[in-house]
Amino acid sequence: MRTEVTPEPVTIACCQLRLRIGDLDGNRAAAAAAVAAASAAGAGIVVLPELTPSGYVFADAAEARSLAEPADGPTAAEWTALAAAHGVVIVGGFAEIGDDGLLYNSAMLADAGGVRAVYRKAHLWDAEADVFTPGAEPPPVVETRYGRVSMVICYDAEFPEWVRLPALAGADLLTVPTNWPFEPFPPGERPLMTVNIQAAAYANRMFVAAACRCGTERGVGWTGGSVIAGPDGYPLAGPASVAGPSGDAEPELLLASCDLGRARDKASGPRNDAHADRRPDLYDRYLHSAPAGAAG
Amino acid sequence: MRTEVTPEPVTIACCQLRLRIGDLDGNRAAAAAAVAAASAAGAGIVVLPELTPSGYVFADAAEARSLAEPADGPTAAEWTALAAAHGVVIVGGFAEIGDDGLLYNSAMLADAGGVRAVYRKAHLWDAEADVFTPGAEPPPVVETRYGRVSMVICYDAEFPEWVRLPALAGADLLTVPTNWPFEPFPPGERPLMTVNIQAAAYANRMFVAAACRCGTERGVGWTGGSVIAGPDGYPLAGPASVAGPSGDAEPELLLASCDLGRARDKASGPRNDAHADRRPDLYDRYLHSAPAGAAG
Repeated sequence: MRTEVTPEPVTIACCQLRLRIGDLDGNRAAAAAAVAAASAAGAGIVVLPELTPSGYVFADAAEARSLAEPADGPTAAEWTALAAAHGVVIVGGFAEIGDDGLLYNSAMLADAGGVRAVYRKAHLWDAEADVFTPGAEPPPVVETRYGRVSMVICYDAEFPEWVRLPALAGADLLTVPTNWPFEPFPPGERPLMTVNIQAAAYANRMFVAAACRCGTERGVGWTGGSVIAGPDGYPLAGPASVAGPSGDAEPELLLASCDLGRARDKASGPRNDAHADRRPDLYDRYLHSAPAGAAG
Repeated sequence: MRTEVTPEPVTIACCQLRLRIGDLDGNRAAAAAAVAAASAAGAGIVVLPELTPSGYVFADAAEARSLAEPADGPTAAEWTALAAAHGVVIVGGFAEIGDDGLLYNSAMLADAGGVRAVYRKAHLWDAEADVFTPGAEPPPVVETRYGRVSMVICYDAEFPEWVRLPALAGADLLTVPTNWPFEPFPPGERPLMTVNIQAAAYANRMFVAAACRCGTERGVGWTGGSVIAGPDGYPLAGPASVAGPSGDAEPELLLASCDLGRARDKASGPRNDAHADRRPDLYDRYLHSAPAGAAG
């Protein structure tokens, strides 16, 4: 049985950061400054981008390995110390070297007590497959004083089945450390990656907080567009500065005051419930009886 | 084995209509006029709202029954005749009375050859549960000269698992007859129901066309916000006129020229594929091993 803890209200922060590939010290310092700024602004939960200490666009697997660290390495020590110093919960991505010697694109949740959970990205994007081993464990759901917090990483969030898992397991807040590569999009539109975060929140009536990067790294521009979406799918903060023809996205600190307990009411209408109205018997039956391409 | 037919380019039309509860003749006439207008504008596929002939806000089950018809009833005859006269494919919603005497919130796909498929809404909204029996069959996928067309109805589209079924079964275009009840939303935002359609398209790299209503019926306002989204999730047409504090949505004819065959390329990046990158083994394993509320 889950111990029911009434969540305290909390300010969530998403830190859209400018980082540099390979600059472990500089990137950790940027993250520390962002956590301090978020805390000074009242944040209790701080979300950092994917692969914060290392950067993302590795030249090859050897470079990635040289920038990776164990889940109890220096980043864990620093983020635990920052969490203790500022009284916050920190979620952020890092390049993990596992006990098995393999590399994972991971995220950790740290509070003053230490690293509470590590998650390994299960859906790898592009050249990540040359470097990282995909995770095979579901997103963890961690009980905090503010509510139950989970995490997935970037491309993971584009698979609604994967987002459903922590939601059904009781997550009030899904955090999404991300590095969204920039792709052109129509004028007046919001990047679809941001839109997708809104839809993930709406489908599960939970809070979703995605923290992206900005700037350009070895020719890859980052979209920006970080967002904190409420259980109704509308942004509580953001979308943050977005890249476009006129230039890069800019660093930004998004803040949203939330009562994560609101995510425990899955009512989608007076008589409807976003989770209870699912028809898992039908999903199972027809998904397995209708392989791709089999319909008439 | 599926017979592979190279889809012809097509203009999709979404007809955002003003209808009246109980006015079968008037509503069928409005639908006929909309199909004619869409055809005159070059449409090959025409999408009409949910429950087009009957209207939506029934006083009770008896009224709904009085407005329902079999799947081979007068609406089937009229839409088949319209499809033949205009050379179009028509998808629209109607109140179905089944062979079992039960009522279903259904949609049909009709072309010049007749009714090609009927689909019964599987996720019922609010008072629909007092009137309709939920469907238990997956969305059908119908081969047309323009590509493979499927349909779900309104609230169905808020369940990504359900949308996944026709997508994995090869649908190039998902049509969504809908009556979205108006709920207030933040200034500057797009209604989340429209956003959700975009995300459904993006998650499956397919075309999605949702046709809503406008006006007010027995105190329920309709959102409008009909949209035709491309495989990248961005609107090809719409969102149509949306209701708001300043008044009702207005009737609108959305038109988008499409090559539905584009939906057969599920590439989400140079080395990624929105369907092949799914991890169904993990979804299955953890969905069934982690019932709602069981996580720590």
